[in-house]
Amino acid sequence: MSHLGPLRRGVWAALLGQLLRPPRAVCIRAVGCHSQVAQAVLTSQLKPHQEKPNFIIKVPKGTRDLSPQQMVVREKILDKIVSCFKRHGAEGLDTPAFELTEMLTEKYEDNFGLMYDLKDQGGELLSLRYDLTVPFARYLAMNKLKKMKRYQVGKVWRRESPAIVQGRYREFCQCDFDIAGEFDPMIPDAECLKIMCEILSGLQLGDFLIKVNDRRVVDGMFAVCGVPESKFRTICTSMDKLDKMSWEDVRYEMVAQKGLTPEVADRIGAYVQCHGGISLVEEMSKDPRLSQSQRALQGLGDLKLLFDYLTLFGIAEKISFDLSLARGLDYYTGVIYEAVLLQSRGQAGKGALNVGSVAAGGRYDGLVAQFDPKGHNVPCVGLSIGVERIFYLVEQKMKASGKRVRTTETQVFVATPQKNFLRERLKLIAELWDAGIKAEMLYKNNPKLLTQLHYCEKTYIPLMVIIGEQEQNEGVVKLRTVASREEVTINRESLVAEIQKRLSES
Amino acid sequence: MSHLGPLRRGVWAALLGQLLRPPRAVCIRAVGCHSQVAQAVLTSQLKPHQEKPNFIIKVPKGTRDLSPQQMVVREKILDKIVSCFKRHGAEGLDTPAFELTEMLTEKYEDNFGLMYDLKDQGGELLSLRYDLTVPFARYLAMNKLKKMKRYQVGKVWRRESPAIVQGRYREFCQCDFDIAGEFDPMIPDAECLKIMCEILSGLQLGDFLIKVNDRRVVDGMFAVCGVPESKFRTICTSMDKLDKMSWEDVRYEMVAQKGLTPEVADRIGAYVQCHGGISLVEEMSKDPRLSQSQRALQGLGDLKLLFDYLTLFGIAEKISFDLSLARGLDYYTGVIYEAVLLQSRGQAGKGALNVGSVAAGGRYDGLVAQFDPKGHNVPCVGLSIGVERIFYLVEQKMKASGKRVRTTETQVFVATPQKNFLRERLKLIAELWDAGIKAEMLYKNNPKLLTQLHYCEKTYIPLMVIIGEQEQNEGVVKLRTVASREEVTINRESLVAEIQKRLSES
Repeated sequence: MSHLGPLRRGVWAALLGQLLRPPRAVCIRAVGCHSQVAQAVLTSQLKPHQEKPNFIIKVPKGTRDLSPQQMVVREKILDKIVSCFKRHGAEGLDTPAFELTEMLTEKYEDNFGLMYDLKDQGGELLSLRYDLTVPFARYLAMNKLKKMKRYQVGKVWRRESPAIVQGRYREFCQCDFDIAGEFDPMIPDAECLKIMCEILSGLQLGDFLIKVNDRRVVDGMFAVCGVPESKFRTICTSMDKLDKMSWEDVRYEMVAQKGLTPEVADRIGAYVQCHGGISLVEEMSKDPRLSQSQRALQGLGDLKLLFDYLTLFGIAEKISFDLSLARGLDYYTGVIYEAVLLQSRGQAGKGALNVGSVAAGGRYDGLVAQFDPKGHNVPCVGLSIGVERIFYLVEQKMKASGKRVRTTETQVFVATPQKNFLRERLKLIAELWDAGIKAEMLYKNNPKLLTQLHYCEKTYIPLMVIIGEQEQNEGVVKLRTVASREEVTINRESLVAEIQKRLSES
Repeated sequence: MSHLGPLRRGVWAALLGQLLRPPRAVCIRAVGCHSQVAQAVLTSQLKPHQEKPNFIIKVPKGTRDLSPQQMVVREKILDKIVSCFKRHGAEGLDTPAFELTEMLTEKYEDNFGLMYDLKDQGGELLSLRYDLTVPFARYLAMNKLKKMKRYQVGKVWRRESPAIVQGRYREFCQCDFDIAGEFDPMIPDAECLKIMCEILSGLQLGDFLIKVNDRRVVDGMFAVCGVPESKFRTICTSMDKLDKMSWEDVRYEMVAQKGLTPEVADRIGAYVQCHGGISLVEEMSKDPRLSQSQRALQGLGDLKLLFDYLTLFGIAEKISFDLSLARGLDYYTGVIYEAVLLQSRGQAGKGALNVGSVAAGGRYDGLVAQFDPKGHNVPCVGLSIGVERIFYLVEQKMKASGKRVRTTETQVFVATPQKNFLRERLKLIAELWDAGIKAEMLYKNNPKLLTQLHYCEKTYIPLMVIIGEQEQNEGVVKLRTVASREEVTINRESLVAEIQKRLSES
């Protein structure tokens, strides 16, 4: 095998034995290896690297790779979320990463410029999906479905200025649960809030609070404060920034950029300070100004019923009616909500600090009709879990705890203390794989036993099968427990059964 | 709740009761409902549908949604594939859906035009990933990793003319397993073939065959046949079409479009007829023309060793050395392979019909160096499972079997035979959810018992909890087994424990 000279084998040994050797040795050998490989690259007509002196290797702005360590965290979190969705009877759905651009236009109002468009390459005009809600509505309309309870886990893309340190990316994963269909008021809405509570409690992220409002209350508030109806949605988008910006800055945007009079803005300002429980809902229903709006009263009526159901679910104390909550997305028509984690400062609860939104959603009763050629509609309510932020928090917690994460699930390592035992190892490991046992070995003709032991310790493989000349002759193998270093000799034929027995016990 | 009038409730009843009522009734009620909803849409400032008379609702060309039924099939298949990858010690990895365009250029030769580019929106030039291999090589180089065994499951995008009937899409899912690092020859390569066999056997797709060749044998063959070296890659791309096109058509492309002389093409034509086992490898090593190429001899030497290991793994009879195999992708440098399903025509094996490639891969020793600014290299070998084709085949098999697929996992349904029991149902179902039990109820204030029974039968929910006035007064509930219609009365407090007991037994 002339393409693998002794130099290459040396590199392998150096890499596997990196615990034992200084890193410099690895580096020198790797460089030595490179010139050999570069030649192979040239002869096989691949472009050599020399042509790109300014080539910087990176991922697109606002995106990232997930390493094996991060994937382990991610899998655990997604498993818990999907389990909860299934516990509530949801079906799975998948939609394409991109949609026809016209399917997405007019759904996101001020945020439309944040969409990733595909280049026109002589076909359809396409854009990457901005959320999972609009594709869901498109799916319902396209398939003429009148009801559906579905979950979807998938990436979405938004060209926002990335603030990566806080777990905000341009490519990020969303986990959505939605209930579509004509139902009695507030029952599915209450279930969505129950799901958010179950997920956030289950993930043990600390204390949290779910802010609730209603688009009709927001619109009614705008109306009675004197906002012209044509500005409802854009003022709503400004108000949505209240969790990131101070009221003063939002007020400035409303007045200087969006043309509200200072008086109108100040009237809004008085309302957005208000938050509380069901008593605030009652109070607002009697508010002399707000109660002039029929829409606001409709919203407040639904919120009262919602709080009743949330009390029966035992989660009312997690919910806060908050008049500052607006939700930036254009398609909401009724109840809206947003979950924030609270970082207790001193005493829990009191003086708690908002560390960011981790889940949100609401009712969108008009979206499906926008897709249906005949305008047939299907009312919907749903929620979206912002898992990137949760990944980040769980990762931080794990780092702080100092616990090491296993990135593989290998149960058995096949080792030999002797030279020329590759063929025996290959036969043995194939038997294990065929029996469904998770097994690894080193891809080396003659590995050192110490290197093999180190590999097991480094990757937390619990069991080791050792085969050598003596074992071979006697028709046995050694089975070693890596942690305790205990070794037993067992018959070659009973190996699989013995391993399966041990694994079922552990 | 004025936005939900009696008309809406009527629609809901009609939809839930669709087994009992003629479909026309549903339709009329839905239209009646629409005018009401359309008004709500207008007042909430969403664009009404009337503005788009030519609006056709569809997904982009070559893409599709996966319905809940399809998602169930997909999840099962992906689970089996990922289990196999984990059995072989692989770690998970995720990379962004798009890469900087410059990261992908010069990796796919003739296929570069098939890439989806993103519009230049005033930032970086980006393209959707074409496979998972190039991003993996980019990841290794970017993180200076010298070895890694990873799997990745994700979507890739190619602007090919979609032939959807055969399970070919422009957006499709790939499941990749790769081993990167300097190892002794053919050990990881043999494991990749073992994994392909385990997955294809495990999915019970019928008989299959894995064609094997080596890029050095292909290049050596081109050289000794008289193909100019500058045309190796483009002639390779033509040869790759042999599974879809006849030799005559491929020959025409080579001669008329790519400028080979007819004599050179015919010499290639003689080799591409050859396929067989290890004896063909031996024979080709002594072929007077082919043995003049050092590169071909290197490839043949590795193939001999590979067959030795495959025999030890017990899978040699599944492997065919096939000189027509080329693999279209530019980056392969050594062993290449492709698995095809065989549809037995009469006798199994003999006269078998190739129904398409379902997995493929190979060795790519030069790709990582293309990313590394200093040209450091990491040899790699891997495989990719073409799951869309497998989804399609399994779906067909399930349809043919007539078996109905459950799309939810709900274990218990909470029902009532009486009016005004919503609050009790809400309290009870929250208890079940909190105990981790998968439970559903109808989102209706006063559902009919028959409607509730039908729902359970339609969605295969095995257990039903029934609560009414009498049960409420006695502090009990009824637990009904939906299939057998057996009912038992149990204490309200022991309900969760009883359900958990029953579920653990089933």
